Amino acid sequence: MADQETDNGAAPSRVEDELEEAREKAAEMEDRWRRTAAELDNFRKRVARESGQQRDTERALVAASWLPVVDNLELALEHADAGDEAIVEGIRAVRDQALAVLSGLGYPQVDDSGKRFDPALHEAVGTTPSPEVPAGTIVHVVRPRYGDGTRVLRPAGVVVAAEER
Amino acid sequence: MADQETDNGAAPSRVEDELEEAREKAAEMEDRWRRTAAELDNFRKRVARESGQQRDTERALVAASWLPVVDNLELALEHADAGDEAIVEGIRAVRDQALAVLSGLGYPQVDDSGKRFDPALHEAVGTTPSPEVPAGTIVHVVRPRYGDGTRVLRPAGVVVAAEER
Repeated sequence: MADQETDNGAAPSRVEDELEEAREKAAEMEDRWRRTAAELDNFRKRVARESGQQRDTERALVAASWLPVVDNLELALEHADAGDEAIVEGIRAVRDQALAVLSGLGYPQVDDSGKRFDPALHEAVGTTPSPEVPAGTIVHVVRPRYGDGTRVLRPAGVVVAAEER
Repeated sequence: MADQETDNGAAPSRVEDELEEAREKAAEMEDRWRRTAAELDNFRKRVARESGQQRDTERALVAASWLPVVDNLELALEHADAGDEAIVEGIRAVRDQALAVLSGLGYPQVDDSGKRFDPALHEAVGTTPSPEVPAGTIVHVVRPRYGDGTRVLRPAGVVVAAEER
């Protein structure tokens, strides 16, 4: 069949070569299309996933940049305790407002006193013998934690009850 | 040519129909591939553009949530002026730190006193007759502006010199 010629000079072999070529090209283009479509689909899914993460990351970065301000408000409050009551009230109001902003952003201040030490939430800055509580209990919070469970802006700095010897 | 038959029964007309069909399919698939590739390309570009915008938006939102804290620090400072010098110093230090954080995020506090009123940067809260300066000059800043030119977190609240009558 490959050697047959038709009356008008068209070679079936050539036509069939061209057919094979065209089919190969069709298969190749379909393959490219499917790959590109899959890539587009994966990219869309990845973007949808990461866009939320990126927003969370930016929020955490910006919120964290304010923590030193909050720390110093607490410090000012400690030092102002002896001062004029109206001023102390003013500073306390600003501090409470700052904590409300942090909480609104998803990072409430959490008191970890008396809880069990958890390396995901706490940073041990020291241990102390404490016969009255089980070892591993947080006996003193040096620096409060902001954020709960899945979203911790800053772990608490804590002093932990030591193992008895 | 369409009516010719070869010895082995294969119709050239059929082969050529198939060729035409295969070529159409190849063209169709190439078209789909090119369209999908263009869509992927556009999507990539859009994502690159919007991801920066999204981060900027989130940064502005979070930073703006802290402005009331900064406002109240300024207020506490005004009221504390008569108080203990150490406490005033403490509050001033916290206020300066808060302004440094805002500036670090791209929103420096800008003093607009004496500048020409610009609705993109300023919000007029009132006018006042001021023969000594040209009309439209900012004579008093009630609430400072944060951010310059392209990125204004909050426009300044200003009192503007009135037209002479």
